[in-house]
Amino acid sequence: MEYCSGGSLLSVLEDPENTFGLAESEFLIVLQCVVAGMNHLRENGVVHRDIKPGNIMRLLGEDGRSIYKLTDFGAARELGDDEQFVSVYGTEEYLHPDVYERAVLRKPQQKVYGVTVDLWSIGVTLYHAATGSLPFVPFGGSRWNKEAMYKITSEKPPGAIAGVQGEENGSIEWSYELPLTCRLSTGLKEPLVPILANILEADQKKCWRFNQFFAETNDILTRIVVDVFCLPQASSHRIYIHSYNTTTKFLDAVFKQTNVAPHHQEYYFEGHQYELDPNLQAQSICRTTEHNPLTLLSIAEQPEDVVGVRYRDPALEFPKLVPRVDVVADCRAAKSAVGAVHQTLRIARALRRCRELLARGLHWVIGSLKAECLRVLEQKRGALSVLSCLQLTEVKAPVLYEAALAGSGVLALGDAAMVKQRLQRLAEELSQCSHIFDFQGALDGVLAELLKHGQEAHEDKSIQRMECCLEQMQLIYKQFRKARTSPRLGYNEEQIHKLDKVNLGHLARKVLLIFQDDCVERYEEALALHGSSMRKVCEIKKHLKRLSNRISACSVEMMQCQDCLQSAQDTFLQPEQQSLAPAPPAPSPVPASHAHQDMAFRMQELLEQMRSVTCDLQLNNSIIERLRGAAAAPGV
Amino acid sequence: MEYCSGGSLLSVLEDPENTFGLAESEFLIVLQCVVAGMNHLRENGVVHRDIKPGNIMRLLGEDGRSIYKLTDFGAARELGDDEQFVSVYGTEEYLHPDVYERAVLRKPQQKVYGVTVDLWSIGVTLYHAATGSLPFVPFGGSRWNKEAMYKITSEKPPGAIAGVQGEENGSIEWSYELPLTCRLSTGLKEPLVPILANILEADQKKCWRFNQFFAETNDILTRIVVDVFCLPQASSHRIYIHSYNTTTKFLDAVFKQTNVAPHHQEYYFEGHQYELDPNLQAQSICRTTEHNPLTLLSIAEQPEDVVGVRYRDPALEFPKLVPRVDVVADCRAAKSAVGAVHQTLRIARALRRCRELLARGLHWVIGSLKAECLRVLEQKRGALSVLSCLQLTEVKAPVLYEAALAGSGVLALGDAAMVKQRLQRLAEELSQCSHIFDFQGALDGVLAELLKHGQEAHEDKSIQRMECCLEQMQLIYKQFRKARTSPRLGYNEEQIHKLDKVNLGHLARKVLLIFQDDCVERYEEALALHGSSMRKVCEIKKHLKRLSNRISACSVEMMQCQDCLQSAQDTFLQPEQQSLAPAPPAPSPVPASHAHQDMAFRMQELLEQMRSVTCDLQLNNSIIERLRGAAAAPGV
Repeated sequence: MEYCSGGSLLSVLEDPENTFGLAESEFLIVLQCVVAGMNHLRENGVVHRDIKPGNIMRLLGEDGRSIYKLTDFGAARELGDDEQFVSVYGTEEYLHPDVYERAVLRKPQQKVYGVTVDLWSIGVTLYHAATGSLPFVPFGGSRWNKEAMYKITSEKPPGAIAGVQGEENGSIEWSYELPLTCRLSTGLKEPLVPILANILEADQKKCWRFNQFFAETNDILTRIVVDVFCLPQASSHRIYIHSYNTTTKFLDAVFKQTNVAPHHQEYYFEGHQYELDPNLQAQSICRTTEHNPLTLLSIAEQPEDVVGVRYRDPALEFPKLVPRVDVVADCRAAKSAVGAVHQTLRIARALRRCRELLARGLHWVIGSLKAECLRVLEQKRGALSVLSCLQLTEVKAPVLYEAALAGSGVLALGDAAMVKQRLQRLAEELSQCSHIFDFQGALDGVLAELLKHGQEAHEDKSIQRMECCLEQMQLIYKQFRKARTSPRLGYNEEQIHKLDKVNLGHLARKVLLIFQDDCVERYEEALALHGSSMRKVCEIKKHLKRLSNRISACSVEMMQCQDCLQSAQDTFLQPEQQSLAPAPPAPSPVPASHAHQDMAFRMQELLEQMRSVTCDLQLNNSIIERLRGAAAAPGV
Repeated sequence: MEYCSGGSLLSVLEDPENTFGLAESEFLIVLQCVVAGMNHLRENGVVHRDIKPGNIMRLLGEDGRSIYKLTDFGAARELGDDEQFVSVYGTEEYLHPDVYERAVLRKPQQKVYGVTVDLWSIGVTLYHAATGSLPFVPFGGSRWNKEAMYKITSEKPPGAIAGVQGEENGSIEWSYELPLTCRLSTGLKEPLVPILANILEADQKKCWRFNQFFAETNDILTRIVVDVFCLPQASSHRIYIHSYNTTTKFLDAVFKQTNVAPHHQEYYFEGHQYELDPNLQAQSICRTTEHNPLTLLSIAEQPEDVVGVRYRDPALEFPKLVPRVDVVADCRAAKSAVGAVHQTLRIARALRRCRELLARGLHWVIGSLKAECLRVLEQKRGALSVLSCLQLTEVKAPVLYEAALAGSGVLALGDAAMVKQRLQRLAEELSQCSHIFDFQGALDGVLAELLKHGQEAHEDKSIQRMECCLEQMQLIYKQFRKARTSPRLGYNEEQIHKLDKVNLGHLARKVLLIFQDDCVERYEEALALHGSSMRKVCEIKKHLKRLSNRISACSVEMMQCQDCLQSAQDTFLQPEQQSLAPAPPAPSPVPASHAHQDMAFRMQELLEQMRSVTCDLQLNNSIIERLRGAAAAPGV
């Protein structure tokens, strides 16, 4: 047998760091290894019958990542594909209710157990790994209250994944979701919960078969992750997506978590807008991390509400420390306190990361907007030049007509007058488009404020101070674990133990104080500031967009004016040319301007066509994916 | 006396992690604490006489940072400001040569020792802290070869900060710089080396007085740090600068380290160009870290050479492991091997960071260039519109003239013909400015390649694999330290010891292999790719700049053409208007165009003025800073 140096999954879960379950990356390794092990057993027609964290051994891979292995096949026996076994063996908390009834409650029963009893154990194990707690907890604990335990597991309603009895013989509170303290992301919880609900199913007929369990877990395990930070909502998301999925699916998945409609989603990466080609496959999306996510901006008219980091107040997780010396209870309390500090630190890190991502995202958007300001300025400058040129032509034209014809070109003059009016209106319109400098000033203002706050964040040492406390608390916990095994403490040891316990309480309170006074307060300040900055920036973004559109409209109208002037001149010249000397046919400028307008129209048409093609493409993609999903499921 | 839980500076330096000296942040804390402690002694008129790492105790601050305290005043005695003491006491390696001569060599001498003997000890201590080694090493070690030790310290040439004797009675190799393995940045080494050279000065008359030492060290300690990454050279820099220094000083400091002339320096931060206002004080520069530096681009014509990370091949640091069991030598070898792995890991991390910063910096520059492309496109579009408008006017004008006058406006016609030619040339010129789409395509190409490589870097686990090896080696080293204290190993222990040593060798080789095959190779690939990408991008940047200038020139020329057309029409209309009916005085368009040109000139003038004011300002700033520096030094 292989030597597993890293203990078992149980010892990992016993580490106070994992009091609230494993980190997402570690959980996925557990899931992958358990499913692979279970599949191996299945292929060899073996039922394990004793799957539990203590039987899942951990070893360290070459790169420091964990590898888990299903072990202890003492209870395993060979089993035909549809054969069912009658003997019982397992570990109480992880047992299928039918097995529990016979093995623990010792009740005679005629039930036959299918291979799906292993799935139940996997369900309990996965719930334990995901949350750090057992899913089914009768009042007083499962060992003490075996009848209630059986009642909970056997009467669990469909869809529920946990049930806790709050008081003796009291009703059971069912959960249909993983708790808020769980460290897994919404993106992972969402497909995980239905799996748990369907394998934690007492009714063997309703319970998923192994094949379905295998297909559904593999569907999670083969996905890639894209980290997304929704800037207006200040919320981090992990999008689990298949590498062959295209942008449409990705945008939909983001919509599901953020409620930002796909056509309102605009992404930023490394400071600049990141264009998601509709044909792009998820595997080609830039690689993201929690600290370097794709930053999402909503371009909806309605401003988004700030959501922020969702967490349960860690003050609720801290145990009460009683003065009486009880080495076992004290050790438990110390573990629980250390676990609570770990959780507090994690939340504090999430709050700080949120602040950093807010600042960086805003910086990026402002940077891009400033570049856009330069473009619009250039656009405006061009429009003004054209206007001045047209005005020159327009002013001179009637003088020329008069000089040439002495008042006979009435029609042309009428047209020219209209053009004059239009040009005046355009000049007014363009002169109103002078907010760009204001925008630039406002953006610089927001940026300066942002950088000032960045400097403060730079000097923030609250996390380090909490880490120092944690280190000292861990030393005390280590002492308490040693003390737990000794039958009695000597006088001196007891005094030191008491002192340590007082110290533990002090440190715990200090951590909470730092968390509340520094982390939460600064985070909330940052969130408030972000809200107002974001509104300003989004407002400017909208205005700039409108401004650019107005200038474009002006340009189009100027083209029309140009055409008008030209045709006026043409109609004016036509009779003249006929009556006068055979003037050399001037290199016709008509096509130039007509061509302009024509081109604009054609571009518009092209754009429309491209949009419709894109829509078709997106539709096709989603159909293909749906088909592929349908084809994959029964094929496994 | 305070309880110092963190051991002493000596125990910190004995940690294999610090085999090559302390990290920069830790070194600065040591410097600050030693200088503060020494100043305190000075203020109380006390000479310590036994400053050495073993007497500098460490405790942990609330935020986990070290605090060092000068201790052990057993040898200290009170001393008047100019009083000198004759008794001797100290620790060999850290002793001033005069003291050494009397205390260690037991030679009678009449020399009196000034307080500056403490400075010598501080010099040796700081050198030890900066490099992990003693500065003066006679062949065979200082304890064994006391005469040579005295010879080295007493005959040290001015400016030298270390001397090593390579063979018995051999000549001494003097160093005037800190070694390449030292973990301090060039920015810190540069002011530190003269301090060391001037307090490691045997001649008490040449040695700095305490006041000068205090002023110079304080000059370092009061500076702030700006991290700069030079993108074309692929090199990281730390700029030590006073918070009140302005941009000029900062640009000069960067020039000193990178050789990029101040007016060629262009900075990027968070994805966008970062404008350094000449009046900006260093304290207001955005806060940088090693991982998030200001990114420097050179806009010099001459492309910069790639420098990359400077490091000494870590293979040279690994000890030879001999099969013979010798617990003391084995422990020393294990320590040295663990130290070498630490160094290897640090270099590997620096190489990876360099790759990340290269990719990110290039991404930023490309993003900004793409935005610039959009601006130039807009600029070109504007120029084309004006051109088409002018051509329309130009084409129609002669026809109108002819129609009106039937050939009498010869002068005006000649002018108009010239304008026609010029407009045609401009049209050609503008049609040649069609590379923008090519630029955009090329930039997208470089970006795609960059993102592809980013994905590979994402999957690189070499650092984690090396960390795993280090962890195992540390366990073996811990065993060896235990074994060192035991007088004899039993048979079983010796076998395990041998096995451990073999294992240690394997692990060390594995680390080196990963370093050479993965880290260095990938780094060099990245560097090569970066060189070519950088050339492409800089080429595009230059072209785009030129293109924008050409379009601007075209616009200016078009304004002139517009003026020409106008004045031609004016001269043509003048006699007509007089002879013809009293035409309504058309709202003069003349000023419009003249005003254009006029404004352009004035803007140019304003720009010139601003430049000269900026220059004056920069000059003033540097004068003020020099004055301030001069005023500060004697005042302390």
